[in-house]
Amino acid sequence: MNLILLEPRDDLASGDVTLADARAAHLLNVLKVTRGDTVRIGLLDGPLGTGTIASAANGRVTMRCVFDADTPPRPRVDLLLALPRPKVMRRLWAQLAALGVGRIILTNAERVERHYFDSHVLTEASFRPLLVEGLQQARDTRLPLVTIHRQFKILVEDHLDTLAPDGVRIVAEPGATTTIGVALDGVGGRRVLLAVGPEGGWNTFELELLRAHGFRQAGVGARTLRVDTACTALLAVVHAAVEEHR
Amino acid sequence: MNLILLEPRDDLASGDVTLADARAAHLLNVLKVTRGDTVRIGLLDGPLGTGTIASAANGRVTMRCVFDADTPPRPRVDLLLALPRPKVMRRLWAQLAALGVGRIILTNAERVERHYFDSHVLTEASFRPLLVEGLQQARDTRLPLVTIHRQFKILVEDHLDTLAPDGVRIVAEPGATTTIGVALDGVGGRRVLLAVGPEGGWNTFELELLRAHGFRQAGVGARTLRVDTACTALLAVVHAAVEEHR
Repeated sequence: MNLILLEPRDDLASGDVTLADARAAHLLNVLKVTRGDTVRIGLLDGPLGTGTIASAANGRVTMRCVFDADTPPRPRVDLLLALPRPKVMRRLWAQLAALGVGRIILTNAERVERHYFDSHVLTEASFRPLLVEGLQQARDTRLPLVTIHRQFKILVEDHLDTLAPDGVRIVAEPGATTTIGVALDGVGGRRVLLAVGPEGGWNTFELELLRAHGFRQAGVGARTLRVDTACTALLAVVHAAVEEHR
Repeated sequence: MNLILLEPRDDLASGDVTLADARAAHLLNVLKVTRGDTVRIGLLDGPLGTGTIASAANGRVTMRCVFDADTPPRPRVDLLLALPRPKVMRRLWAQLAALGVGRIILTNAERVERHYFDSHVLTEASFRPLLVEGLQQARDTRLPLVTIHRQFKILVEDHLDTLAPDGVRIVAEPGATTTIGVALDGVGGRRVLLAVGPEGGWNTFELELLRAHGFRQAGVGARTLRVDTACTALLAVVHAAVEEHR
C-alpha cells in the first residue's frame, strides 16, 4: 500500500478523517506511524495529498488531510478484453488498476465460455476492492470504469463509440507485422483503446468486425503469452508508446 | 501448451519419439490428436519442428519428428533481479521464460530477506519445469540460464562482465526521467541487461554500484508496480524497444 486511498464514505468534512479498517491496520502495523508522521493519501477519483497523523492507537488512526489542487488525469489507455477464466480475471483486476486503465470493457467472444459471466469475480463487491488495491499500489486515485457485455456484436456496433469515442483503436494479435510503437505513431494527445482477445484468439468474424470499426492489428512479437501476462505486457508497451508520441 | 518441447532424455535417435507423461496427456486429452495429425514441436535449446502422430492411445503418443534447420536465437534480453519473495518468484519463472530472457541472474540486495535464498523455488528441480512451461506457452526452445548470487557486490564487481558482457545495461527506477525507449536508442544488435530491484527499491549504495558498472537508470513512468507486474511490464517494453531500434 503506497497510498492510503480515502473514499466518499470516509467522513472528510472537517479535514480530519478517522480510519479503523484495513487501512488503519496497515498504518499501525506496517508503516508503524506515530503522531506527527506524514503519509501519502489520495481521494478516490480526486486529488492526491498528505495526511498528518493526529493519533494512532487501539486499531484507530486519525489524520489531518491536505489535498493537492488538481486531480490526476484518467489514464489515457482503455482496455477491451474478452473475458478470461474467473481465476485469471480475479488476478487481473489489481494489475490493471496498477498499470493504469481508464475503462475496462469486458466482452463475450466465441472462445469465451458463457458461464464465466456468472462468476462472482464480475460483481462490483468482488472487483472494486481489488481495483482499489491496485490504485493504492500504483499511487493513483482514478478508479477504472467497468462495463460488462455479453454480446460482442452489439457492444462493438452500438456501444463502443459511446464508451470510447475518438481514440486510436488497436487489436493485439500475436505475430502482427505492425508493432504497437508504429501503430501509435500519430496518437498525439488522443486516447488509446486496446483490444485483447481470449485464449485461442478472436475468430475471423470478430477480427473483421473490429477492423470495420477502426481497430488496427498490432503486436509485441511472435510469442504467445498467457492472457494475464499479455495484458500486462501490452498495456506497458502501449503506455510507453503513448508517452513517447505525446 | 502451444508447443511440445522434447528434451535430451526423450529418445530421439530414430526420428520417432514416444511420450507417456504430461505431454502425452495434453496431446490426448486437450489436443485430442489422432494418427496423421501434426503438432508443433521443439527440441530444448534446439530447433522448432513438426511432429506427425503415428499412434495415440492408452496414455502413450508416438510421433515422427522433423526439425527445422536453425535453432531460434536466444532472446536478446537478460534480467538481473533482486530475489523477490518465494511466492512471487514461483509465479515469475514461467512468465519470464514466456516473455523471453536469455539469462536470469538472481541477486541479494539490502531489501531482500536472506531466508528467501533457502526456498525450494530456487532449486533446479523446482524451477526448471516452470521455465519449460513458459517456453511451451510462448513456442520457444531456449531455456533461460539461471544463476543465483548471495552477494550483490561480488556479483556486480567480479561476475557480471562474464555473465553479461558487451550489452547495454539499464536499471529500472520508478520515476526515472529517461524512458526505456530513449535509453535503448542506440542499442543496435547488442544484448540488453535489465536490472529490477526489490520491493522498496535498491539502496543508494547498490544504485551507485550499478551506475559505476555501466547501468543507466530508465523507467516506464511514475507508477509503482508489484515486482511481478513490473518484471513483465519492463521486459515487454525492453523487447519492444530492442525490436524498434535493431
